[in-house]
Amino acid sequence: MEATPRWDVVSFGETMIRLSPPLGERLETATRLDVRIGGTESNVAVALARLRHPVAWCSALPDNPLGRRIAAELRWHGVDVSLVHWVEGGRVGVYYLDVGVAPRPTQVLYDRQGSAVATIDPTCIDPTIVRYARWLHLTGITPALSPNCRAIARALVEAAQQAEIPLCFDVNYRSLLWSPEEAAETLAPFCASATVLICGRADAETLWGLHGAPEEVLVGLVQRFHAPITLLTLGDGGVLAEANGQRYHVPALPATVIDRIGAGDAFTAGVLHGLLEQVDLAQALRYGVALAALKITMNGDLALITRHELEAALRGTARAVVR
Amino acid sequence: MEATPRWDVVSFGETMIRLSPPLGERLETATRLDVRIGGTESNVAVALARLRHPVAWCSALPDNPLGRRIAAELRWHGVDVSLVHWVEGGRVGVYYLDVGVAPRPTQVLYDRQGSAVATIDPTCIDPTIVRYARWLHLTGITPALSPNCRAIARALVEAAQQAEIPLCFDVNYRSLLWSPEEAAETLAPFCASATVLICGRADAETLWGLHGAPEEVLVGLVQRFHAPITLLTLGDGGVLAEANGQRYHVPALPATVIDRIGAGDAFTAGVLHGLLEQVDLAQALRYGVALAALKITMNGDLALITRHELEAALRGTARAVVR
Amino acid sequence: MEATPRWDVVSFGETMIRLSPPLGERLETATRLDVRIGGTESNVAVALARLRHPVAWCSALPDNPLGRRIAAELRWHGVDVSLVHWVEGGRVGVYYLDVGVAPRPTQVLYDRQGSAVATIDPTCIDPTIVRYARWLHLTGITPALSPNCRAIARALVEAAQQAEIPLCFDVNYRSLLWSPEEAAETLAPFCASATVLICGRADAETLWGLHGAPEEVLVGLVQRFHAPITLLTLGDGGVLAEANGQRYHVPALPATVIDRIGAGDAFTAGVLHGLLEQVDLAQALRYGVALAALKITMNGDLALITRHELEAALRGTARAVVR
Amino acid sequence: MEATPRWDVVSFGETMIRLSPPLGERLETATRLDVRIGGTESNVAVALARLRHPVAWCSALPDNPLGRRIAAELRWHGVDVSLVHWVEGGRVGVYYLDVGVAPRPTQVLYDRQGSAVATIDPTCIDPTIVRYARWLHLTGITPALSPNCRAIARALVEAAQQAEIPLCFDVNYRSLLWSPEEAAETLAPFCASATVLICGRADAETLWGLHGAPEEVLVGLVQRFHAPITLLTLGDGGVLAEANGQRYHVPALPATVIDRIGAGDAFTAGVLHGLLEQVDLAQALRYGVALAALKITMNGDLALITRHELEAALRGTARAVVR
Amino acid sequence: MEATPRWDVVSFGETMIRLSPPLGERLETATRLDVRIGGTESNVAVALARLRHPVAWCSALPDNPLGRRIAAELRWHGVDVSLVHWVEGGRVGVYYLDVGVAPRPTQVLYDRQGSAVATIDPTCIDPTIVRYARWLHLTGITPALSPNCRAIARALVEAAQQAEIPLCFDVNYRSLLWSPEEAAETLAPFCASATVLICGRADAETLWGLHGAPEEVLVGLVQRFHAPITLLTLGDGGVLAEANGQRYHVPALPATVIDRIGAGDAFTAGVLHGLLEQVDLAQALRYGVALAALKITMNGDLALITRHELEAALRGTARAVVR
Amino acid sequence: MEATPRWDVVSFGETMIRLSPPLGERLETATRLDVRIGGTESNVAVALARLRHPVAWCSALPDNPLGRRIAAELRWHGVDVSLVHWVEGGRVGVYYLDVGVAPRPTQVLYDRQGSAVATIDPTCIDPTIVRYARWLHLTGITPALSPNCRAIARALVEAAQQAEIPLCFDVNYRSLLWSPEEAAETLAPFCASATVLICGRADAETLWGLHGAPEEVLVGLVQRFHAPITLLTLGDGGVLAEANGQRYHVPALPATVIDRIGAGDAFTAGVLHGLLEQVDLAQALRYGVALAALKITMNGDLALITRHELEAALRGTARAVVR
Repeated sequence: MEATPRWDVVSFGETMIRLSPPLGERLETATRLDVRIGGTESNVAVALARLRHPVAWCSALPDNPLGRRIAAELRWHGVDVSLVHWVEGGRVGVYYLDVGVAPRPTQVLYDRQGSAVATIDPTCIDPTIVRYARWLHLTGITPALSPNCRAIARALVEAAQQAEIPLCFDVNYRSLLWSPEEAAETLAPFCASATVLICGRADAETLWGLHGAPEEVLVGLVQRFHAPITLLTLGDGGVLAEANGQRYHVPALPATVIDRIGAGDAFTAGVLHGLLEQVDLAQALRYGVALAALKITMNGDLALITRHELEAALRGTARAVVR
Repeated sequence: MEATPRWDVVSFGETMIRLSPPLGERLETATRLDVRIGGTESNVAVALARLRHPVAWCSALPDNPLGRRIAAELRWHGVDVSLVHWVEGGRVGVYYLDVGVAPRPTQVLYDRQGSAVATIDPTCIDPTIVRYARWLHLTGITPALSPNCRAIARALVEAAQQAEIPLCFDVNYRSLLWSPEEAAETLAPFCASATVLICGRADAETLWGLHGAPEEVLVGLVQRFHAPITLLTLGDGGVLAEANGQRYHVPALPATVIDRIGAGDAFTAGVLHGLLEQVDLAQALRYGVALAALKITMNGDLALITRHELEAALRGTARAVVR
Repeated sequence: MEATPRWDVVSFGETMIRLSPPLGERLETATRLDVRIGGTESNVAVALARLRHPVAWCSALPDNPLGRRIAAELRWHGVDVSLVHWVEGGRVGVYYLDVGVAPRPTQVLYDRQGSAVATIDPTCIDPTIVRYARWLHLTGITPALSPNCRAIARALVEAAQQAEIPLCFDVNYRSLLWSPEEAAETLAPFCASATVLICGRADAETLWGLHGAPEEVLVGLVQRFHAPITLLTLGDGGVLAEANGQRYHVPALPATVIDRIGAGDAFTAGVLHGLLEQVDLAQALRYGVALAALKITMNGDLALITRHELEAALRGTARAVVR
Repeated sequence: MEATPRWDVVSFGETMIRLSPPLGERLETATRLDVRIGGTESNVAVALARLRHPVAWCSALPDNPLGRRIAAELRWHGVDVSLVHWVEGGRVGVYYLDVGVAPRPTQVLYDRQGSAVATIDPTCIDPTIVRYARWLHLTGITPALSPNCRAIARALVEAAQQAEIPLCFDVNYRSLLWSPEEAAETLAPFCASATVLICGRADAETLWGLHGAPEEVLVGLVQRFHAPITLLTLGDGGVLAEANGQRYHVPALPATVIDRIGAGDAFTAGVLHGLLEQVDLAQALRYGVALAALKITMNGDLALITRHELEAALRGTARAVVR
Repeated sequence: MEATPRWDVVSFGETMIRLSPPLGERLETATRLDVRIGGTESNVAVALARLRHPVAWCSALPDNPLGRRIAAELRWHGVDVSLVHWVEGGRVGVYYLDVGVAPRPTQVLYDRQGSAVATIDPTCIDPTIVRYARWLHLTGITPALSPNCRAIARALVEAAQQAEIPLCFDVNYRSLLWSPEEAAETLAPFCASATVLICGRADAETLWGLHGAPEEVLVGLVQRFHAPITLLTLGDGGVLAEANGQRYHVPALPATVIDRIGAGDAFTAGVLHGLLEQVDLAQALRYGVALAALKITMNGDLALITRHELEAALRGTARAVVR
Repeated sequence: MEATPRWDVVSFGETMIRLSPPLGERLETATRLDVRIGGTESNVAVALARLRHPVAWCSALPDNPLGRRIAAELRWHGVDVSLVHWVEGGRVGVYYLDVGVAPRPTQVLYDRQGSAVATIDPTCIDPTIVRYARWLHLTGITPALSPNCRAIARALVEAAQQAEIPLCFDVNYRSLLWSPEEAAETLAPFCASATVLICGRADAETLWGLHGAPEEVLVGLVQRFHAPITLLTLGDGGVLAEANGQRYHVPALPATVIDRIGAGDAFTAGVLHGLLEQVDLAQALRYGVALAALKITMNGDLALITRHELEAALRGTARAVVR
């Protein structure tokens, strides 16, 4: 029996409190930090919710002011957080951002060990929730958090396969969480189950030794995982894709950098938006690069962009002031 | 009998409270807004007052903290506000600024309906005040605010003509206030009365169908309104002008963008400064583009620039630090 | 046929953007304003939602950044805003707060005319929504906004009576919106329909000439409107109540004042919380005064208090630091 | 020949840039400082200008951003600064405020040596300006700044006497600027010339050895200087006055302390307001203590209070919120 | 062989990053947090260093921006941090402060598990460092952090006893870290080794069942631990002490509350300051309560008070403004 | 007898309080100023201390909150300030920064006359301190401050020569402090004593009339002062050097400009770092330009950069985000 979809996308992952000093200040000497939230899966969820897609984000959070803050801010943007498992006495992950401008890099200091979601009992999450969604979205960070998270991610993929819900999987290798070998082995089945597989060029090389020209790397990913849609993200070089034997390249949109964090997640959200709207893949990729460019122009992980603004950016309307 | 000039320029128009989030934040999610003031006519007046010209700005304001704020901030910069008509119980217009960086445009949200100046009784403003000024400055926004404002603007132009005071008129079409047709018809007599007519390229096309190369558009404006000095502003392309059958082109000065709002008004002020200082038109236009470039480097609508700074910018002194 | 309750309370009213300078600054000279939201009905709804009651707030909002902000911030706190009617092109009401400390009063500057909810077509709101709630909450501000709002408020009361849903009505006379005579006449039927009638001492005198000792004023209200539960709020004097011929007095809890705005709404929420929890009236009133005292200790209209914190305040735990 | 008064009050003195950390921070460790202006004479002038009295403040200022800031902020509040003498290349005085709360005192760190006004050539100030005012206001700080300032203060008093303009003189002894002996000797002639003499209890003891009960100190001042109106300020004890052989005592108004600096100047302004409005002395003193109490409720040296607010405070309207 | 003292006091403990919202904001909804540092032992060290005592604080810190921040801020205040053991890859403890005003309590949310100091290898700290100090200062928090920290604390006490360095021990029970039973048992030997034993009234009851009037509790502590100087802190009731069979009571100094956190540590520092200055115990206690009162008037854990300010507060100079 | 080096570098000079408005604001209209410290010698010292070099900075400071702030902030970064001479009652220099972006220059307003260091008695500084350092660092600003400072600088150079400690001298001509003629004459002996001589191209021309191509100017400096290492800084053109008859050119690293002030001092620190690390001169110069580029990316005079970050910038690692 087929479930009626309640959500366009459902995801599972960790969202953290994000603390960052004002522009031009360094973390060590800052006297005030801006409080925001960030997590790759919920970043995608928020961007989609702002584009008016019904989405749900599932995770575990401690019932303290910081945990409630994460849920509340997601709710603000319209993300359904009713699937969240609330825990007494745990902690949230926190990450500190030392935002740089060239040639000084932005540096991330994670303090995420032992978070509520990393220590969650897998039986607390019901994998069949995916049946009520059109897409399942996961990233390679979640299996890296803990064996429990890995089990949950696997159960969700299995439930999705049973219910014929497609998986959008973003490799997102985090070197601070695990080794390339462990990641490569663990993530391969996820990649092989994905309908849309997203992988950055550096991750493709680090995990699976795929190097050479972007086209060669893309071919390597396709041959290895056979995803119906394979996307190789190239940073300022845009995105290279293959689907049904056809090749696509969409260059990045130039943007004034305010905050780079979350640009990749905005790209994923833009592509999913396109697929949900059933435009062709080239157009979906254009949504992706446009949403990534717009994200970069604002503080925080989140791409707070309306459909109207996304369309305007794609049309390339040259006006600097709208009034 | 000729009046002794008290002011170099007198103007009439609406000034609003301007509320804007910090750089990189969006209006919808901001938790603090900077309070400034802005209005095209008073922006010009402030820029001129900072350059040590005696100027007066006339309008109507409610006698509440926001109305008093507008008058006080103008007084701060040296603008004479003694002509302002004070109203019990009205409101000030407010505009919210969602400041963008490329490719995200700056978006303006106006909340200006029913403001004190829009609802003013025309008899409250004595048009003969223009007799005490060397120039009358008006823009196409004022006639768009209300029939009453239109009547006052017309009365001021008439009084100026009788007193042989030249008019500087900036078309400044605002699509949220009226249709192109109504604007074209209403503004034509103002344009035809102007000694200095300023029009942006897009407005020339929207209102009077003048398209083609900038030179063609300029010719169109000259043939239609016969202003002694006609200025076609081209944004990053600088300005194209015609006066006494002679053609001028002054390119824009490159500037790091902090806030674009008010750049056009700074240009107008720079040109008027030049005309008041009786430099030749080419030099006056250079003042205009330099003041616009300097304005762009600071927050807010206002060009807070001294004569010394303006001259230094024009000399193109290359020093990044003055000490 | 009886509907299953989805919400403990449903309300209808106007919520505004609230702009206030930092402590010790005056509105006229402030250079930054804090952005919050406020509206008597949604203040009650938020306080209840924070206490984990399912509540819905109904209104009309323009689909612009300020309208979306209001809905988003309510969603943050857990209020259901799915009943909101979205409008293209309207405006939200705004109020500016000049926060004082004794002997300088806090002054409110309203700029709310012509807001989306005041200009709403009454047919856009379906009054039968009250059938899905345990309580209907209305205040005397809504009928003062416009004839349309008055019609909607009446329709909601009628629908509530048909569905036997009790009404909690807070008189809340606003002298800037209408005359005492018009208010007295218009609000009387609402008072007469209320199960819980809340009225401040000054309003009782201004509207219905009820003066004298608090007890006399209370008797006057009871004799005039026959509400099953009549609450006379006395500010620092606490609250005096009558229900089923019994009299109650609960003194106010002393509190360090950070921001008084919203204390009355917190009181209403505390009482409704008690009634929903089916404690006796004396205890419900204690919830009311405690929630009001806690509200006063924080910035903004909203009482952001958990059940745990409310219970601790009532137990009068004397600890100044919890760790 | 008698001059027509242009100003109700004219004064001469030093105004400084005032830098203060946020509440609860100490000067040594603060990372941001609020920029305001302060000077006892201009504080009085601003308070009077806010009450709609035409007033002028005379001084010397360097033509740099800090000097211009002082003039601009005074202009904002409506003070006439056209008498200011502008200097190339000088400096403004600065004072740093380490704002305390009991039992930690507010500490002032002056950095005012060599300021433009202290080094002014006395011939730059024309003392006959006092002829265009109803009152001359001076304080004991000005003669302490430099011999030049002393000479100017004396010339102003002389010109006032010739033009029969009354002097309001506030002793305001500053121990960091000079010794009690030098001050006592220098200030005596000013006190003896005053129509209104204002002296704090501690200053009366320090300078002239007047101790004992307030009444005795007051008698001592009256016997020594024979001012028509002698005011002994008692801080939290209010003010004790003698005029025409009659004695007055007005208690202080209780107020929540935000910032004490400037309270004495607000008192002076309130008294002058009363005298200008020609109320009886008791009422003038009530204006003084009320304005001082209102000043204390806001940040900065300046009493930004309208007539309406002053009257309301005097009526003792008990409302904590005005809406 | 006796070592020459380098420091007046040496201590060992955990210092955390402290994150707190602005006054009146709640942790859950704050958008900015102030960054400070706090830890009971380093709070005492800073207060002593500000009074010009050479002091050293020993701990373990990770070599990341947050660890470096803690050391740097202590260095700012003059604390010697050369004994700190630097760790690659660990974390610092963090605590979040939800600052309240009555009746809303200040709430502390600790996130300190697994910090560098809690996981330190005890052999990394050389206990003989105490030989270079006049006093060893420890608190009951350190043994609660981990078995390793407990071992280090014990080794320090042992080394102090061998070198005849007196111990100042503050019980400071933290219920979130361990049970009363475990704490009572673990802390008893520390208490019994102390020359100065400091215990709050509630802790005396919770840990050792000492209740009744303060005098009885004090007697209980003296009889149980026989410390030469026993101090029972009573919060607003001041402090009760016994030494050499003599009893002392010093009431608390009234203070306007800005931030209570750290008041107890300031008290300890004041007492140690007195003992180091060799004043009599009554005077040392007065230093304690005065420093605690002064601490309360400023934000943050730290008592940033000079000797001059401390003496002035004790003399009870009534001036609210020093200039 | 040779002293054991305690410090890699010792310097002497003036450090000021630096007050600057937020980005995009102008000094005249700013309502808040950021408080930082700056001084060319201590800027170099801080940058070296952050790179883990032991350094000492010598100067005179008043014992008030601003003087203590300067010492404390240097201590924060690890600079030894134990050589500072503390003065009762003096003042610190202050400088105000009107930060610009192109084409608006950054403008510096100095208020440094009569500072504690400028008025110091030369006998208060013991020149033999240089014996405990590997390098003496001086700039041309110190001799310009006062004859006393000139005497101290000379005594330090003499002591260094006797102890065979090399001098690093940065010409740093400040036109507001003295004339080119006086500077040229005074600074020549310092230049002639330097082991490393650093001079900007404009200063070389202003002081010694050296113009033409950079190579010619460099030759002029070498021929005039015969420094073993001569560095001609060219701003965006990088640096040109000569040592042992060999010529070096290192181009500047492109950087996003946040704040240019202090870039030259960071360059000096980078070069000294290289020399102390005994890399070859080309690599030392690369350290210089990299540290200057990194400095430009952050607010304030100080280059807060770790060795790790410096090495990464030199390797030109292209990553914009490190995580």
